[in-house]
Amino acid sequence: MDDQPPIRAVYRLLLSPGVDPHERAAAIAREQTLEVPSGAATPEIESRLLGRVISVTLEDSGASGLAPGALHAARVELDYPAPLFDGTVTQLLNVAWGNVSLMERVRLVDLRLPDWCLESFPGPGHGISGIRGRLGVSDRPLVASALKPVGLTPQELAELARRLVRGGVDVIKDDHGLVNQPMAPFAERVLRVSEAVRDENARRGTRTLYLPNVTAGAGALEERADEAVQSGCHGAVVCPGLTGLDALVRLRRLQPELALMAHPSHSDTAPQGRRGIAPPLLMGTLWRLFGADCVIYVNARGRFAWPLETCQAINRRARGPLGGHRRAFPVPAGGVQARDVVHWFDTYGADTLLLIGGSILEAEDVEAAAREVVEAAVTAVAGSRSVEPESSRAGAPQ
Amino acid sequence: MDDQPPIRAVYRLLLSPGVDPHERAAAIAREQTLEVPSGAATPEIESRLLGRVISVTLEDSGASGLAPGALHAARVELDYPAPLFDGTVTQLLNVAWGNVSLMERVRLVDLRLPDWCLESFPGPGHGISGIRGRLGVSDRPLVASALKPVGLTPQELAELARRLVRGGVDVIKDDHGLVNQPMAPFAERVLRVSEAVRDENARRGTRTLYLPNVTAGAGALEERADEAVQSGCHGAVVCPGLTGLDALVRLRRLQPELALMAHPSHSDTAPQGRRGIAPPLLMGTLWRLFGADCVIYVNARGRFAWPLETCQAINRRARGPLGGHRRAFPVPAGGVQARDVVHWFDTYGADTLLLIGGSILEAEDVEAAAREVVEAAVTAVAGSRSVEPESSRAGAPQ
Repeated sequence: MDDQPPIRAVYRLLLSPGVDPHERAAAIAREQTLEVPSGAATPEIESRLLGRVISVTLEDSGASGLAPGALHAARVELDYPAPLFDGTVTQLLNVAWGNVSLMERVRLVDLRLPDWCLESFPGPGHGISGIRGRLGVSDRPLVASALKPVGLTPQELAELARRLVRGGVDVIKDDHGLVNQPMAPFAERVLRVSEAVRDENARRGTRTLYLPNVTAGAGALEERADEAVQSGCHGAVVCPGLTGLDALVRLRRLQPELALMAHPSHSDTAPQGRRGIAPPLLMGTLWRLFGADCVIYVNARGRFAWPLETCQAINRRARGPLGGHRRAFPVPAGGVQARDVVHWFDTYGADTLLLIGGSILEAEDVEAAAREVVEAAVTAVAGSRSVEPESSRAGAPQ
Repeated sequence: MDDQPPIRAVYRLLLSPGVDPHERAAAIAREQTLEVPSGAATPEIESRLLGRVISVTLEDSGASGLAPGALHAARVELDYPAPLFDGTVTQLLNVAWGNVSLMERVRLVDLRLPDWCLESFPGPGHGISGIRGRLGVSDRPLVASALKPVGLTPQELAELARRLVRGGVDVIKDDHGLVNQPMAPFAERVLRVSEAVRDENARRGTRTLYLPNVTAGAGALEERADEAVQSGCHGAVVCPGLTGLDALVRLRRLQPELALMAHPSHSDTAPQGRRGIAPPLLMGTLWRLFGADCVIYVNARGRFAWPLETCQAINRRARGPLGGHRRAFPVPAGGVQARDVVHWFDTYGADTLLLIGGSILEAEDVEAAAREVVEAAVTAVAGSRSVEPESSRAGAPQ
């Protein structure tokens, strides 16, 4: 690995007056690599493995939104030598966002990953074109809805799923709060709901997908993914923040049949945060790189009110070039209102999987509410075409 | 579970002027439980499963350290009904710190866990008394040091371990940056180092423990823990932030022989953060509850400069009552200076495992530097006795 290019990490620091950003940058570079005082390692190790400060750029205090004289913001680029890594998710995160994650007011905003690194992770197994092919929907935005709330029985969830299939949604997912509670144990829920979805699909000639939530500790996670496949599911929801991000790679390899939808529960990230991993890097780049076919984030104007620019940045990263990896569907969620869907289709374009839960479920007629959203998605195709190249589009008719 | 008491979560919110803390509290209670708009669930589900706001307390703006008129701080207590949970780490975190972890300026500061919840997790397998028994050290603070930097060969790491054993340290741990790089692959490193430690122990009649870093994705993690046991190790280091916190429970059950030392890499928490899980809850309570025998945090005055009160709060939680669970060793680390150890022993008391890496490793004579620290620990016993009850103290002579 010595002859391979390094991984570049970009951090944003907020500094008290008088703190030298160059010193902070050098301290982070040492912390994340050798983690011994200067002089304790051999010169050979220092020159080969110590993180390197590439640039330190002070942000204009007006642009940073901070009062002058209080904190100042700096953007620093560090290079981490390739031999520190071992091709795993855990070690990539250990170096890029390890001990530095315990410092006040430091944020990981970007990673520039060389080819050797991009190639060591699987990326989406299906991606936008694979999911479009499975659904037979080539060129319009997709619509997902959710089975919830927790407390419904498997029978009730199955009946709700039938209504959503009849309403024409493309994807039905379990709420991330549905795990393995006695009210609707995983195995029974998945069996009942997937039967219902299969049955309604057969009656109507549709291809709605059902994605159960397989989130659990290791062991149980793999068992649930296997049960999902056995029940005929072609996808699953997983919360990488809860399982560890490595679970995406494992599921991708163990169950290549399943399209993976990453859900942000416990991801501990927010757009204006002074700490943590910035949402576009985490959700748009890392989740996709590790194997997510669909990446859920909380949409602008919804319950969480993330800024539109953050949502658009996630979209760009989920869909843009990432080595040779497939493109992932961005999934705006978290309070998307059925009445606003035309706006979101126009804003985000065709390669979007819009997730609308509560706003459909609170309707008196769930089936009709779903149908209205799907009709808006079908209409949206005129204005916002898929940017997927023709060659990779699915040929199946709608 | 319907007749079991709820789990109480305590959040601290920073709110813009005009935002009603009661409304925010109610929104979090709904987000973390039903996650559908009011009216979309049946009255029966609403009354049985919706999170409940117990109290909302505004902080005095002077005490909160915020400028008046800018943000105001509120502490809110919410109850989450027992049937939402399923006895797993992932679901406890999903409810207590799930989607709410995507909101700006909300922090999880405490959890009150009823007995049914405390009993569903294993707690430390060895705890303070078990580790003291293994070491034959009944009543003084313990001293740990680290094998680093990355870049050393297995032979060099083994030689370093020999010096640390000769210096008399109680515990030798792998740096969390040592994983499975070709420079020192896991299997060879653990074999060489554990041989060296066993050999030196036999020569000197000591019982120094070697804890290899087994952090890896699921599967590799279990394999490494097994290799550690096969190599004669009685403990291991794991980074729950990287593996998912569930890994503690798994290791605890799969390898009951191993004492687990939790390392905070990628834990993404800091004392003054406005978001995330507060360090005392994460490190002092949750890591211990899930199975950590030793909890590493970054010490006051060190490279990270966490406030002393945070460190003391972690100590209290690691050592205090937690259902019927064993007590865990707090492990202050991250730039502890050898010259300051008497101060830290006095400040933290006997039931402390002080981790000193760089400050020993940068010495010309590592063995002598280690010995000085250990002698300070032996002397410290007069001033700061173990608070472990006599009955659980190990009887083995030093």
